[in-house]
Amino acid sequence: MSDMDMDEAAAIIRSDPFASSLGIEFVLIESGHAVSRMKLTGEHLNFMGLVHGGAIFALADATFGAAANSNGTMAMAIHVSIDFLAPPGGTEHLEADVREDARAGRGGHYVMKITNDSGELVAVCQGWAYHTARPLVE
Amino acid sequence: MSDMDMDEAAAIIRSDPFASSLGIEFVLIESGHAVSRMKLTGEHLNFMGLVHGGAIFALADATFGAAANSNGTMAMAIHVSIDFLAPPGGTEHLEADVREDARAGRGGHYVMKITNDSGELVAVCQGWAYHTARPLVE
Amino acid sequence: MSDMDMDEAAAIIRSDPFASSLGIEFVLIESGHAVSRMKLTGEHLNFMGLVHGGAIFALADATFGAAANSNGTMAMAIHVSIDFLAPPGGTEHLEADVREDARAGRGGHYVMKITNDSGELVAVCQGWAYHTARPLVE
Amino acid sequence: MSDMDMDEAAAIIRSDPFASSLGIEFVLIESGHAVSRMKLTGEHLNFMGLVHGGAIFALADATFGAAANSNGTMAMAIHVSIDFLAPPGGTEHLEADVREDARAGRGGHYVMKITNDSGELVAVCQGWAYHTARPLVE
Repeated sequence: MSDMDMDEAAAIIRSDPFASSLGIEFVLIESGHAVSRMKLTGEHLNFMGLVHGGAIFALADATFGAAANSNGTMAMAIHVSIDFLAPPGGTEHLEADVREDARAGRGGHYVMKITNDSGELVAVCQGWAYHTARPLVE
Repeated sequence: MSDMDMDEAAAIIRSDPFASSLGIEFVLIESGHAVSRMKLTGEHLNFMGLVHGGAIFALADATFGAAANSNGTMAMAIHVSIDFLAPPGGTEHLEADVREDARAGRGGHYVMKITNDSGELVAVCQGWAYHTARPLVE
Repeated sequence: MSDMDMDEAAAIIRSDPFASSLGIEFVLIESGHAVSRMKLTGEHLNFMGLVHGGAIFALADATFGAAANSNGTMAMAIHVSIDFLAPPGGTEHLEADVREDARAGRGGHYVMKITNDSGELVAVCQGWAYHTARPLVE
Repeated sequence: MSDMDMDEAAAIIRSDPFASSLGIEFVLIESGHAVSRMKLTGEHLNFMGLVHGGAIFALADATFGAAANSNGTMAMAIHVSIDFLAPPGGTEHLEADVREDARAGRGGHYVMKITNDSGELVAVCQGWAYHTARPLVE
């Protein structure tokens, strides 16, 4: 895939409505790897005043999608296992770093780390995506 | 726990800012069991025009939180494994049904089913919550 | 697939060396569903004298393989998430019941329940298998 | 914990009947970290002639137990998610490397890598253990 195609794929990925609505910004999208940041607001909190697990997962999953689609063919998430390691604490952002660590046929396997502004682990995930043959850029 | 206390717990659960911002409505909150619905809008979509996996998980996780906190003591999610079974298709809502199926000391185990308006399974999850001794209603 | 072919598939599944070495007996193998029993001996225990988590998983996974291969085409496990709900207690056997609850293209999704002689849940699993086109019976 | 106590804990861990019956050898047991090897025989195979997923998991889980109990207090596995990345291929052994990457109260979180003789990833797992206060060495 040419660099221009990867740029086009990244532009499409960055246009994601759900990610945008949550304030997720894609810091880096390269082949099989993506990094994103989410600025926390009152809308990310649960009824206990802590960052909602669903918001933490959404950041991981959006970044998973960016890494899995980075090469310009559509990938679909099959499964994600998330372990919540610690409440984020008094952090302004959460950051997700997702890397492909294996391929098996059409499957791509990804590991995901979510950290706070101090670099402390908040959650880790692992998951599979299925890589279709359908181009992201038509 | 008295019915009045469970009503108070349910009221607190229903005030969840993240769930509200996603249009999640709690249809039923009873001991160890909760049902929720999320009306889908353009903000729930990913860059492919499909419901975002993060939105599907958020619905499951918010409902998990409702079931796990239904008895009025704070519970924290430890782990969730989500398997995405099928794209939701042309549905207006997604519904989540979460039930506690086991307790082990302070741990509660929950199974989660997410369905579309036709009752078709979209995703299933299983996960653990840790039940603290801290009351939700102080 | 004819009944004779399913009988042949079941015969192959029952010949599994690893399952046999652990004392796993396949009680039922039908389309997308299998039930197995494992008689517990001292070799199934961990250093605490409890049934080893690896033995519990092995029973689940062998039964998953039986359910996923029951229709006579080779299936490969992609992912399993196991939650250990309770120690088995003073039981002579463990039983696993595995059902396919969804198909998505080549993927089959399975839920697994492991119970003791009193019918109490010991562990639950969910997982994906990839169905190849390769026949089990050649 | 003194070095002598850790040596005693390691001796108990090495006496595990299930691990021994599968030919699992503990290469390294140190605080929050363990490495094990399993010599493959015909008994580790499934009916397709491939290493059984249950045998791969058993190696991971036994090593998880070694890492989680290394400090001499009993730990119980709560959950493990295993992703199978590739068939082991023509390898004589499988090796598991398990590390604790986080603690949350009584919970310890572990990441597990299973590789073949060529160092290729065969499977990865992540899971939680609950650390009781009960000493392994009484």
